[in-house]
Amino acid sequence: MLIIDVINDFNFPEAPLLLKTSAPIADKIVGLKKRAKEADIPIIYVNDNFGQWQSDKQRLVEYCSAQAGGNFVKALQPDEDDYFVIKPKHSGFFSTPLSTLLNELGIQTLILCGVAGNICVLFTANDAYMRGFTLYAPSDCSASNIKEDNERAFLLMEKTLNADITPSEELDLQVIIEHAEKDKQKTMF
Amino acid sequence: MLIIDVINDFNFPEAPLLLKTSAPIADKIVGLKKRAKEADIPIIYVNDNFGQWQSDKQRLVEYCSAQAGGNFVKALQPDEDDYFVIKPKHSGFFSTPLSTLLNELGIQTLILCGVAGNICVLFTANDAYMRGFTLYAPSDCSASNIKEDNERAFLLMEKTLNADITPSEELDLQVIIEHAEKDKQKTMF
Amino acid sequence: MLIIDVINDFNFPEAPLLLKTSAPIADKIVGLKKRAKEADIPIIYVNDNFGQWQSDKQRLVEYCSAQAGGNFVKALQPDEDDYFVIKPKHSGFFSTPLSTLLNELGIQTLILCGVAGNICVLFTANDAYMRGFTLYAPSDCSASNIKEDNERAFLLMEKTLNADITPSEELDLQVIIEHAEKDKQKTMF
Amino acid sequence: MLIIDVINDFNFPEAPLLLKTSAPIADKIVGLKKRAKEADIPIIYVNDNFGQWQSDKQRLVEYCSAQAGGNFVKALQPDEDDYFVIKPKHSGFFSTPLSTLLNELGIQTLILCGVAGNICVLFTANDAYMRGFTLYAPSDCSASNIKEDNERAFLLMEKTLNADITPSEELDLQVIIEHAEKDKQKTMF
Repeated sequence: MLIIDVINDFNFPEAPLLLKTSAPIADKIVGLKKRAKEADIPIIYVNDNFGQWQSDKQRLVEYCSAQAGGNFVKALQPDEDDYFVIKPKHSGFFSTPLSTLLNELGIQTLILCGVAGNICVLFTANDAYMRGFTLYAPSDCSASNIKEDNERAFLLMEKTLNADITPSEELDLQVIIEHAEKDKQKTMF
Repeated sequence: MLIIDVINDFNFPEAPLLLKTSAPIADKIVGLKKRAKEADIPIIYVNDNFGQWQSDKQRLVEYCSAQAGGNFVKALQPDEDDYFVIKPKHSGFFSTPLSTLLNELGIQTLILCGVAGNICVLFTANDAYMRGFTLYAPSDCSASNIKEDNERAFLLMEKTLNADITPSEELDLQVIIEHAEKDKQKTMF
Repeated sequence: MLIIDVINDFNFPEAPLLLKTSAPIADKIVGLKKRAKEADIPIIYVNDNFGQWQSDKQRLVEYCSAQAGGNFVKALQPDEDDYFVIKPKHSGFFSTPLSTLLNELGIQTLILCGVAGNICVLFTANDAYMRGFTLYAPSDCSASNIKEDNERAFLLMEKTLNADITPSEELDLQVIIEHAEKDKQKTMF
Repeated sequence: MLIIDVINDFNFPEAPLLLKTSAPIADKIVGLKKRAKEADIPIIYVNDNFGQWQSDKQRLVEYCSAQAGGNFVKALQPDEDDYFVIKPKHSGFFSTPLSTLLNELGIQTLILCGVAGNICVLFTANDAYMRGFTLYAPSDCSASNIKEDNERAFLLMEKTLNADITPSEELDLQVIIEHAEKDKQKTMF
């Protein structure tokens, strides 16, 4: 499960818009993350460095917690044992070790959450699709500045990337895990 | 100017749809390519290998000319001096030498044309945007299987990637070249 | 089996040196390639574009056959069914679709041949090692401008990259294939 | 200036060898780093994650300081304002944001230091050379498990990658900076 850009400084012109549309998704992501951890699905934060090139997760979380979206950030902060991949651009795969990590973990199926749905989530989804990943993008776990842009991005993920955009509470994680195991075998034999 | 996937075997379930929506764009691309060559803008074909891994441009053009979209392919075939980059996946930047070529040519501004607008053109545009390119995607030089999907993709390129989607005949190539030169200087000083 | 930069224009200052050291390896590569094809090992040419960006294999072979190393090139020219990957820089993995092709073919073991041993073969070996490939680099199937440089590169491949540098005629391809199959299973379970 | 893998847990079979050969280079790197900072040359640590995927620089430094090479690590620990790029494999460019960072900083010349000279330093040098960087690899600022392997790697960097391997104290940083500025202009005009 990839959680994208939720450790955010919300320090850009349209941030107030995004903070408003994002508020409802925090609980949804927290709930899905809890269920995923219980099912032993690895949690991987994929997060912008916001210009901080020291690769210091702790400092990044502290810094973002003190900004406009502090409540959002605190609700979604990573646990000690979560993976944390810092990205410099929009896609989680661009100029990052994400491919290498997923390869080491033997992962070929991804659940995508986070902000903004029409930018970093969409770009990461595109790159994942090109690399052959099966995608879930629960429609209630992402938000964009403008609601229509978010919907357009999710339509595109569904139609072009074959992403399953079922809302989080309707997702049956055991079924996803079983499908993921079967996919893996299909790849190999 | 990138011309994407026009050397195409149109050999997939929705190909008849794409052939129909694509027919009107051939003349537009040919016209824009002619003007671009007169203005000394490099022409770079970025084309799927359609499973042919021999990197043999000539064979690829011959093969596609003999398929369902033969007329489209023949109208748009590359000249001897056009660049030709073969891509194995959707984005022209993924697993190809396109970055290296653009870097050698000192190019930081791209004009994108081709099919399908909501897949290979959009994915290439995303990757270009992440690498800092300025984008033009003339709305009359791309097509998708379904008209609404094409429009959705162009809206996304315009809003998310700051792409200029002015139709080809209204594009003033001299102005684009001047902007491109200025951008380059901005990058360096 | 990767055959590196043998379709070569030998058009650089030290080319006469390389032509001389390379002459004896042509027969060795031809012999190994023949045995590999009989054993259904895919043959993949990985070749510099020598500044020709049209991705036209046929033209590249014709051009190089007419240069100083024509005999070498003709002896080693690719068959119709060999894979052919064009690279713009030294490593076969940099800015090329090689990873994607190997992934599609399910290949995790490589036999490396070609020129120059201390540059393009070594760089490709490094990149392959980082991506987890098991390496064979038969010491009689590569050459460098200067013999000592070639030996130094092979020592490095052997010690740092765990490459097996046994000469080609002593290689038991069936054993290599069996090891490759076992490796694959190890990766998955 | 890239400082490679000095925040190291020295937790591998040959580590005692490397600790012994590395001891003398700590002072040299510290001295060169001090002079580089005075000359406003950016300091970029490029460091293995040693299997820790939380991107937490602070925790990584603490962990390595408590291992066998604690003194070495403490002598070389990063300052608050140094860049810190975490890499999962041998080359600093593989699966990391290093390219993106260097691009943002407008850097085209690199000074390489660290361990091991014949592995991570050499692999990073290869990748840098392919991307067109001008290289300095002061011979007294790197060490390998075995002295001869280190010398072989430095010979290769000098001969194949055109690296300047002058010892650190003989390097004139002002001259390097002037050359770097001139290179940049050459690239553009």
